Amino acid sequence: MTFEVTILGCGAALPTLQQYPSAQVVNVHDKLFLVDCGEGTQVRLRQSSVRFQKIGHIFISHLHGDHYHGLFGYLSTMRLLGRKTPVHVYAQPALEDIVKLNLRISESYLGYDLFFHATPDAGSHMLFEDHSLEVWSFPLRHRIKCNGFVFREKQRALNVKKNMVRRYQLQPSQIIELKKGNPVALSDGRVLNPAEVCQAPPRPRSYAYCSDTAVYPELASWISGVDLLYHESTFLETEKRRARETFHSTATEAAEMALRCNAGRLLLGHFSARYADTAAFAEEAKAVFANVVAAVEGETYRVG
Amino acid sequence: MTFEVTILGCGAALPTLQQYPSAQVVNVHDKLFLVDCGEGTQVRLRQSSVRFQKIGHIFISHLHGDHYHGLFGYLSTMRLLGRKTPVHVYAQPALEDIVKLNLRISESYLGYDLFFHATPDAGSHMLFEDHSLEVWSFPLRHRIKCNGFVFREKQRALNVKKNMVRRYQLQPSQIIELKKGNPVALSDGRVLNPAEVCQAPPRPRSYAYCSDTAVYPELASWISGVDLLYHESTFLETEKRRARETFHSTATEAAEMALRCNAGRLLLGHFSARYADTAAFAEEAKAVFANVVAAVEGETYRVG
Repeated sequence: MTFEVTILGCGAALPTLQQYPSAQVVNVHDKLFLVDCGEGTQVRLRQSSVRFQKIGHIFISHLHGDHYHGLFGYLSTMRLLGRKTPVHVYAQPALEDIVKLNLRISESYLGYDLFFHATPDAGSHMLFEDHSLEVWSFPLRHRIKCNGFVFREKQRALNVKKNMVRRYQLQPSQIIELKKGNPVALSDGRVLNPAEVCQAPPRPRSYAYCSDTAVYPELASWISGVDLLYHESTFLETEKRRARETFHSTATEAAEMALRCNAGRLLLGHFSARYADTAAFAEEAKAVFANVVAAVEGETYRVG
Repeated sequence: MTFEVTILGCGAALPTLQQYPSAQVVNVHDKLFLVDCGEGTQVRLRQSSVRFQKIGHIFISHLHGDHYHGLFGYLSTMRLLGRKTPVHVYAQPALEDIVKLNLRISESYLGYDLFFHATPDAGSHMLFEDHSLEVWSFPLRHRIKCNGFVFREKQRALNVKKNMVRRYQLQPSQIIELKKGNPVALSDGRVLNPAEVCQAPPRPRSYAYCSDTAVYPELASWISGVDLLYHESTFLETEKRRARETFHSTATEAAEMALRCNAGRLLLGHFSARYADTAAFAEEAKAVFANVVAAVEGETYRVG
């Protein structure tokens, strides 16, 4: 089952020819979610050949322009491409005001339903749920209100092995009980335990998005054990003071969070335009957390 | 003296990998003016190596997103690059509301003065003037209120030839009078006429920007005799009905306006994403107006 992240933009507020502002697509079991939507997101989407129209849910971390200025054009383009299915946007409530003002002044309509869902300011909250996935928000520590998001696969039920279904001639009702973890009685009176006929389901995987944020130790509890952690590293340690002033993190600090929350792998991003070579971010982080990579736009990273 | 237009975006509302939404830089005597600012304008500016910070005046034709969605990021980037000199924006008044709402919700400031000037809805009005240039607005015929702009060099004064200054030992006060076109008395009592000692100044040149608009014959009076006319041609004649419905023009109709207003050269733009090859626009227009070219992003076109 697919679980991966495609980076559309991993630059900070000042775009360069190489790096666009924040945006990424999370693919969970072929359902697509957009996380942040900086200016140029729709161009990057076209370049990546991700299908626009499959995205139904958009999560916006905070209302600094480099995380949402691409949303207006993106929503408009979906109308022009004939979209009819709803779009859900999860963000600070003021985003709804500005999207609606844009539509009003341009005397435009969308042609599909657009629903806004406010991201809570404190604590961790489930924003989205379906049969196989949950998406939760949690606060980050930034200059303005800012949320991170964690995508968690749900624990799948036990699987009854096919050869066991045949061997014991199991009925649908018995299979349902076994998948729940309950023993069932066979026609000959024997009791069959799930462990005898089931195989364990795959371990649920998870992905966390933490951008933008200063060092925030409490964060670890909300993203504990994620398989892949995208954490901002706007600066290197040489600019630690600037990171403090602007409520951002260094690559070392991102690595410290990966260690603290026991992440499987660390994906660094939100690089300041002052650094020409992003390899230095991974180099710096490696001293603290070995399994780390600096994000590259257009690349896709597997979760788990 | 430089007078030229660099095309940053000449696509219509739906951006493609080849065409960005509307934006262009007009360079008049090395003063830079931005006309429209679709999403991605700042990326195109970087690609074109135009210096962001030299632009002090921005003219926005109308409030459809493909003509202003790049403004927020552009203004923010100028702050990040340390701009201190003022920026003037000429647009429908609602643009000020939306720019200010963007700044408020992101708790951002600009660090330089930003002045908004409302574009009038009817008639032709001078928006900007300095010693060598005037910029005028005029209405276009679109689904919402929309303005075109015309950049006109001022008529320069007569030039007194250097050898004549020496020959007649002209004083500064006499030179000033001659440049105004007035005769002056020499010390020997002889009257010197300007025609004897002056050379004619160069003919003033002009450039008009007309996007977006349906066919609008009255337009010709405001842009009469421009050296270069940028006129939208969203569609070809085969889609004339669609042009009517959406208040846009075909390439033929743009050429008819170039003929009607006695333009020197026609530059076509605002091409619908449905056309893979923009050469067809110039081909179609040529049957009506010979001196025509289809705009190409990144290219610069001389005025006059």
